[in-house]
Amino acid sequence: MPEVVLAIDIGGTTVKGSVFVDGNEVPPGSTVPTFEKSSGAFDAVLAVLSALAGTARALGHEPTAIGVGTPGLVDRRAGMVRYAANLGWTNLPLGQLLETRFGVPTLIDHDARTAARAEMAARPALRNFVFIPIGTGVSAAVVVAGKTVAGARGQAGELGHIPTVPNGRPCSCGQFGCLEAYASAGAVLARYIAGGGNAESAADVAGVVGKDGLANEVWADAVNSLATGITTLTATLDPEEIIIGGGLGAAGSVLLDPLREKVESLLRWRDPPAISASRAGPRAGLLGAALLGSAARSNSTHTGQESS
Amino acid sequence: MPEVVLAIDIGGTTVKGSVFVDGNEVPPGSTVPTFEKSSGAFDAVLAVLSALAGTARALGHEPTAIGVGTPGLVDRRAGMVRYAANLGWTNLPLGQLLETRFGVPTLIDHDARTAARAEMAARPALRNFVFIPIGTGVSAAVVVAGKTVAGARGQAGELGHIPTVPNGRPCSCGQFGCLEAYASAGAVLARYIAGGGNAESAADVAGVVGKDGLANEVWADAVNSLATGITTLTATLDPEEIIIGGGLGAAGSVLLDPLREKVESLLRWRDPPAISASRAGPRAGLLGAALLGSAARSNSTHTGQESS
Repeated sequence: MPEVVLAIDIGGTTVKGSVFVDGNEVPPGSTVPTFEKSSGAFDAVLAVLSALAGTARALGHEPTAIGVGTPGLVDRRAGMVRYAANLGWTNLPLGQLLETRFGVPTLIDHDARTAARAEMAARPALRNFVFIPIGTGVSAAVVVAGKTVAGARGQAGELGHIPTVPNGRPCSCGQFGCLEAYASAGAVLARYIAGGGNAESAADVAGVVGKDGLANEVWADAVNSLATGITTLTATLDPEEIIIGGGLGAAGSVLLDPLREKVESLLRWRDPPAISASRAGPRAGLLGAALLGSAARSNSTHTGQESS
Repeated sequence: MPEVVLAIDIGGTTVKGSVFVDGNEVPPGSTVPTFEKSSGAFDAVLAVLSALAGTARALGHEPTAIGVGTPGLVDRRAGMVRYAANLGWTNLPLGQLLETRFGVPTLIDHDARTAARAEMAARPALRNFVFIPIGTGVSAAVVVAGKTVAGARGQAGELGHIPTVPNGRPCSCGQFGCLEAYASAGAVLARYIAGGGNAESAADVAGVVGKDGLANEVWADAVNSLATGITTLTATLDPEEIIIGGGLGAAGSVLLDPLREKVESLLRWRDPPAISASRAGPRAGLLGAALLGSAARSNSTHTGQESS
């Protein structure tokens, strides 16, 4: 019997999904491009999963597992989203709800840790690294000795809410000067527009860095906040590499070059880690969710051990 | 045959040591109270170990292993101190030198990670925590799922050199605004004296907090820098507890109370971790070195696995 995983990647405003049969993606994927917060996010998850189940059955395959990457404070073992501000979820037993609804073993995890599984699969020799997806928010998956660090209550990874600028800009979390208030795609765009710039997306801002004073300023603040976070993680955890992913991670050298320079200047007392772009790219979350689904199935049939 | 471990704890200006027979400390310990930098530190290590070997033999015990906690960038697997600014060491093969000199298996590790072994032994149920010893310098041992995190090149733990104040005070590492430039015992004392205060030690400064405006100011900066570091580690790693040790850690509630308050205020979007004083106290480094020595012996005789 083939392994048929329904994999979904929940973002701040969209839900993406695909079917993976024995590890191979079956096109086409399903996406709910935008949804309303609160109950809307869960309905969007159900809609995408139902569509994926339909896709699988049309191909003659019965779904065998579900894998879900979601933002927020996620307790993977309990299958619980403790808190996801952008989705309006508090203590949502997402794993159990989906298992009951679709009748197959389900594993959920934090979106960054889920995407990090795809990076690990792409580079199995890399055992100690930090994966930082930059999109609507900024988070981090810390991988130590080949395992993702979930923390005591599954709440690790909230790099977006570390203090980087004393008494700085207000953040959605209620604090001031958080990394996310400078370096997220949303913050870059909002600051550029607030300063009188004209742009539709953070990518537009990235496109005029070097030619536009306001873009230079906003971008430098984003780079400095990210560099502060990366410097702190490197000093305390000594990762071999920092991998930048997510939508803004696709900006390439306009982000990575100044980021490498700034991190190096803050770490003159030791070798800086390599800083690279995600190998799995914007589909890392979905590929990781498929790997998570495989682990769910292994767990349920007692044929294997989940690795992290 | 009893297990006879020579355990030493190398500090910025002193080397302390004790003999442990089957896990029990044999008094009295040996200490070289102060030494000169550069070659002086290694001579001090040899002097203490020779004295300890003499103590053991006088009791009728032949040494069976050596355990060493040392500051700096330490590669435990290679037995190498990559860089220790305060000791003047660069790429010193300390483990091998001591094995050759004393003829017994030797394990060395970073001082904070070594001391964290004593905290783990004191509280085996605690699996995810960060141990922060505050003394001449400030470092951190991150413990994830019961194992210390050494990093890709054994250089994890340098919490003292994370940026906490943009364009802040100069640090010995060459950077500006490092945590250590505000929160180490040396920084607290130096800033108090530079401001016109009269004190012999950081403990003296701690003793007048609440009664002396200058002490209040210096102390608040130390607390704020530590809180920034703890907030960042909590957001990204979600430890169950933060354990404060080292000389300044003994300050007790004058440090822990405002630190808890500040960390809580920076983490309103999630539950803060517990912040506690070291259970093993100022002898954590020495007790941890004894546990390290036990692991060295187990490794060499293939009777056990080293745990971290």
